[in-house]
Amino acid sequence: MRTDRDHALSLDAADPLARFREAFVVADPGLVYLDGNSLGRLPAATERRLAAAVREEWGARLVRGWGEGWYEAPRRIGAKIARLVGASPDEVIVSDSTSVNLWKLLVAALLDRPDRRVVVTDDLNFPSDLYLIDGAVRLLGGGRSVRLVRSRDGIGIDAGDLAAAVDGDVAVVALTQTAFRSGFLHDLAAVTALAHEAGALVLWDLSHSAGAVPIDLDGAGADLAVGCTYKYLNGGPGSPAFLFVRRGLQERLGNPLTGWFGHDRPFDFDLAYAPAPGLRRFLAGTPPVLSLLGVEGGVDLLLEAGIEAVREKSVRQTEYLVALWEERLAPLGVSLKSPRDPARRGSHVSLGHPDGLRVDRALIEEMGVIPDFRAPDNIRFGIAPLYNSFVDVWEAVDRLRRVLAERRHEKYSAAPPAVT
Amino acid sequence: MRTDRDHALSLDAADPLARFREAFVVADPGLVYLDGNSLGRLPAATERRLAAAVREEWGARLVRGWGEGWYEAPRRIGAKIARLVGASPDEVIVSDSTSVNLWKLLVAALLDRPDRRVVVTDDLNFPSDLYLIDGAVRLLGGGRSVRLVRSRDGIGIDAGDLAAAVDGDVAVVALTQTAFRSGFLHDLAAVTALAHEAGALVLWDLSHSAGAVPIDLDGAGADLAVGCTYKYLNGGPGSPAFLFVRRGLQERLGNPLTGWFGHDRPFDFDLAYAPAPGLRRFLAGTPPVLSLLGVEGGVDLLLEAGIEAVREKSVRQTEYLVALWEERLAPLGVSLKSPRDPARRGSHVSLGHPDGLRVDRALIEEMGVIPDFRAPDNIRFGIAPLYNSFVDVWEAVDRLRRVLAERRHEKYSAAPPAVT
Repeated sequence: MRTDRDHALSLDAADPLARFREAFVVADPGLVYLDGNSLGRLPAATERRLAAAVREEWGARLVRGWGEGWYEAPRRIGAKIARLVGASPDEVIVSDSTSVNLWKLLVAALLDRPDRRVVVTDDLNFPSDLYLIDGAVRLLGGGRSVRLVRSRDGIGIDAGDLAAAVDGDVAVVALTQTAFRSGFLHDLAAVTALAHEAGALVLWDLSHSAGAVPIDLDGAGADLAVGCTYKYLNGGPGSPAFLFVRRGLQERLGNPLTGWFGHDRPFDFDLAYAPAPGLRRFLAGTPPVLSLLGVEGGVDLLLEAGIEAVREKSVRQTEYLVALWEERLAPLGVSLKSPRDPARRGSHVSLGHPDGLRVDRALIEEMGVIPDFRAPDNIRFGIAPLYNSFVDVWEAVDRLRRVLAERRHEKYSAAPPAVT
Repeated sequence: MRTDRDHALSLDAADPLARFREAFVVADPGLVYLDGNSLGRLPAATERRLAAAVREEWGARLVRGWGEGWYEAPRRIGAKIARLVGASPDEVIVSDSTSVNLWKLLVAALLDRPDRRVVVTDDLNFPSDLYLIDGAVRLLGGGRSVRLVRSRDGIGIDAGDLAAAVDGDVAVVALTQTAFRSGFLHDLAAVTALAHEAGALVLWDLSHSAGAVPIDLDGAGADLAVGCTYKYLNGGPGSPAFLFVRRGLQERLGNPLTGWFGHDRPFDFDLAYAPAPGLRRFLAGTPPVLSLLGVEGGVDLLLEAGIEAVREKSVRQTEYLVALWEERLAPLGVSLKSPRDPARRGSHVSLGHPDGLRVDRALIEEMGVIPDFRAPDNIRFGIAPLYNSFVDVWEAVDRLRRVLAERRHEKYSAAPPAVT
C-alpha cells in the first residue's frame, strides 16, 4: 500500500471519470469537498438551466411555462431517475420532499394492508424517517405499531435480526438502504424477498444510495421507494425528492394527500376528487418548479457516466480511504465506523474520534476540508466519484492527520454542529 | 365615464405606484399580462437573488449555505409575509405547497376538536382544497363529514346560508377568502367571529388574497391560514406556500407530518420525535431552497408599496374594468361574473361569454393579452397593481371587444385549456 500523494495523482491520471469534474462549478479548487452526500455540487449545466428558467421561462413566457415543460417536469425528470434505480420510466416521479413522499407511500401501504398492524424499521434509519413512521402509525391508530430492529454494533444491521422481525403481522418493511451515519448498505434484493415471503410490502428510502450505488428496484420486485435528489444526484439545496411505485401497485394504492396535481383532470376544476391513473396520483400540490428543474442536470451527468462506472470508482475510493485510515489514522486513535466490506458499504466512510466534532470544526475552519459530522463522534467523508479525486481522499486523510498531530482541534468548542 | 385610451394614460400618469412596474422584468412590453393571480411576474431583484443563490451560495459555499441563511429562510420570509396578512412575525412560516400546508393544519385542527365532526366549506373554494378536505375527513374517519355551502348565483356565498351551516357540530370552517373563479371576497372578520361563536376553529386559504387585499388575521382573531406565494406575491412558479397559526394555538396543535425540520433539535438526530416549540413544528422535510429564496423579492416590493396603497389601486382598476365592460362589452353579450361591489371582490374580474375558452385562446394567440380561463365560461382578468397599468386594463377590454367584433375566436377550438 503506497501512502504517498504521488500515488493518488497517478490514480487520478488513470481515472476514466476524471473529466466529469469539469462539468461542475468548482469555485475554490483547493477545497476538499467530501460532503456531497449532504449537498452535491452545482453542475455547470444546471447553473445555465436555472438562469434560463428564471429569465426566459418565468420572466418571458410567464404562465405559459406550464404548458411548455413545467407541468411535465415531474414525470420527465422522474423517468430519467428511473434509469438510475432500475425502474421503468413510468414508475418514478419527482414530488415534494423526501419526508412528505415517505409519509404518502407509507400511509398508502398501511391502508392497503388493513389486516396487518406492524411496520418494521431499524435504528440506523434516518431519524426523520422514524419520526414520520411513528407519526403515521399514531395517526392511523387501529392498534398499529412500529417494530424497531436495533443494530448490535452501531454500524450495521444483522440479517438474522431483521429476518426475525419480519413475520405475518408485518404490513410494511420501511428501511433506508444506505445508513446515513455508517454507510451500511442493506441487501435490497434479499430484504425485499424477505418482506414478500412474509406477505409484507417494502418501502425503501434510497436517499444515500441513488446516484452512488446501482439499484435494481424492478429486478428485486420492490414495491415502493423514495429518495433525495440533493445528495449524489446534485439537484441543489432542498430540491424535491423522487418516489417510486411498482407499476402493479399504482392503481391499487391511493395518495392520502389528495391535492389537485394528483387529480385525473386537474384543469376541469371538478368538485370531486378522481385520482389520476398511474403514478401522477402521488403528486399533491403545485411543485416548486425552479428547485425541480435544478434536478435534471445532475441526473444527466450520472446517466452519461453510467452508474456501474460510478460505483466502481466509488468502491476504489472508499477502499483507498480505508487503507489510508489504517496506515495513517488508526495509530492516532481514529476508529473506522463504517463496514469494512465494500459490498456492504455505500459511498461514504465514517471515522470516529472522541473529539470528532472539534476535529470536524478544525478541518472546516483551517484545513480546507468539508466532511460532515454526525453525533456522537462520526466524521463522515462522502465521496462523489463524478467530482471527487483520489487526491481529495489523500488530502482529507493527510489534513485530518495534521489536525490531530498538531492538536489543532483543541481550540474549538464542542457546541452543536452547523446545520447540514 | 370616459372610455378613450387617453383617459387610461392620464390615470397612469397620476398613479403613485406606477414606478413599481420598473422593478419587474418585462421582456415583452407590448404584452398585456393579466394572469398575475395565476403566476406573478419576475421581480428584477429576484432574478439577481436567484443567480447569487445558485452560483455564490450553492456553487461556492456548498453545504455551508445552511448555516448562512437557508435554514432560517422559512422563518425570515414568513415574518415578512406576516406583515402583509396582519400577523406577528412568529406566526407565519414558509413551507411545502399550499395543498400540503392546508392538509397539515386541517388535520391538526380536527384532532384538536375530536368531539366535533363537521368541516364547513363552500363550493366556490378551490377544488384542490375540497379534495384535500374530503381526503382528510375520510382518512381520520370517526363519523366526520364535510358540509358544503352552495353558492346561489355561482358568484358569491350568501352570508345567511353560511351562518346556517355553522352550528355546534362544526370543528373547522375552512374557506378560501377570495374565490378563484369569481373573485368573491368573504368577510374574514365576520366569518371568523361566526365560527368562534359556534366554538369552531377557522382555517383560511389566502391564496388569492395575500398581496392583493389587506388582511388582519390577528385583528380578526383568526386561528389558521395558508396561502400561495406565486400569485400576487410574485414568488415564482410553484414557490412554497406560507402557513399561519395563531400564537395561542401553536403549542396546542401538532403537525401530523412529523419530519425532521419540525423537530425541536433536528441535528441531534434523536430517535424520538419532539416537536419544536412554536411554529417551526409545522415544517416537515427539507425545504426547496431555490424556490423558497425566490419568494423574498416580491414580498419586499409589496411591503415597500404598502398593501393599503396596492388595494386602493386594485379597487380603482377593477372598477375601471367593470365600467369599461358595461359600456363596451355588455352590448356584445359579455356578462359580469364577479361581484359588482368592490368591497366584496378581490383583485380579479371574471367576464363570461358562451365561447369563453375560444375567446381566451384568441386573446392569447393573436391579441397579445394573457388572461386565463376557468370553466365553464369565465375569462379571468387578474390585476396586479404593482405592474399592471390602467392602459393594460383598457387594452384588455379593447382587444376583447375586437375579438368579438371581428369574430376572431371562431377559428379556435374549444379543446381543454392550457395548463395554468
